[in-house]
Amino acid sequence: MEPEYSREAFRGKLIRVVVEQWPVGEREVVRHPGACAVVALTEAGDVLLVKQMRESVREVLLEIPAGVYDVEGEDPVGCAAREVLEETGFRARDIEALGTIYTSPGFTDERIDLFVARAEDAGGPGEEGVEVVRLPLAQALAAVRDGQIRDAKTVCGLLLGERLNERI
Amino acid sequence: MEPEYSREAFRGKLIRVVVEQWPVGEREVVRHPGACAVVALTEAGDVLLVKQMRESVREVLLEIPAGVYDVEGEDPVGCAAREVLEETGFRARDIEALGTIYTSPGFTDERIDLFVARAEDAGGPGEEGVEVVRLPLAQALAAVRDGQIRDAKTVCGLLLGERLNERI
Repeated sequence: MEPEYSREAFRGKLIRVVVEQWPVGEREVVRHPGACAVVALTEAGDVLLVKQMRESVREVLLEIPAGVYDVEGEDPVGCAAREVLEETGFRARDIEALGTIYTSPGFTDERIDLFVARAEDAGGPGEEGVEVVRLPLAQALAAVRDGQIRDAKTVCGLLLGERLNERI
Repeated sequence: MEPEYSREAFRGKLIRVVVEQWPVGEREVVRHPGACAVVALTEAGDVLLVKQMRESVREVLLEIPAGVYDVEGEDPVGCAAREVLEETGFRARDIEALGTIYTSPGFTDERIDLFVARAEDAGGPGEEGVEVVRLPLAQALAAVRDGQIRDAKTVCGLLLGERLNERI
């Protein structure tokens, strides 16, 4: 299942754009390295969210910690643990797979592996430009349902994790 | 909240890529017209899904009906109704907003407006290359949870719509 031909139209640091010719027509495809994202729950049952400026949409968004697969040789679980620590200063343990999503298969191959984990305060500094927000899971789910949380991986992660506080 | 400068790096039929300079660094942004997607439920409580080849990921995916905002002057609800009819041959009524997601705000401004609707068989032909799959909502939710359904808008729509069969 490969295109008849393809040409690279853009090569950036994060993404590439390839224009592919398929029997059904031309497809503009954004190639992305993929990413992981983590529903990290504290002992108290709070979920760790990060609030940060997203330049693409000119908005500050509330999201679960996440990161692109850009470290050679690192596996998804390792990436998940690293991103939680870097973005929130918490250590992630008992990391379990929650599922994988394609963010927008109409134009990109980006996949995000979703995880759930326990989070322990490691006294880390968190990341510059990122504010850590702790919310009881029920409150985070309410924020999903009333539209305050709109980032797709975060909506998927929190709703898939809805019954998790008992599970992990 | 605008970049210091930006340059267009690619202009396709569906997407554009703009490289923007922000105080925090360079951002590669895929500009997308946005889209709508619909959780369409039949009288019997089945949800309408479409099974189609997604060239970007070289896979056949199961998704809710959806479409890009590419018709001048059409509003989101109009787009939602048109896409359900075109892709499934069902007429959508009682269309209600379910929320809006950003598919991947790390690199694209794409927004998808999610709707829920009642679907009535209009005897239409559906779309070429698209297979319509009717599943009881509970079975579709199980397919989300076990990873058979991985498209983000579909995961978000179905999980947000979980309690909907009573509501509409």
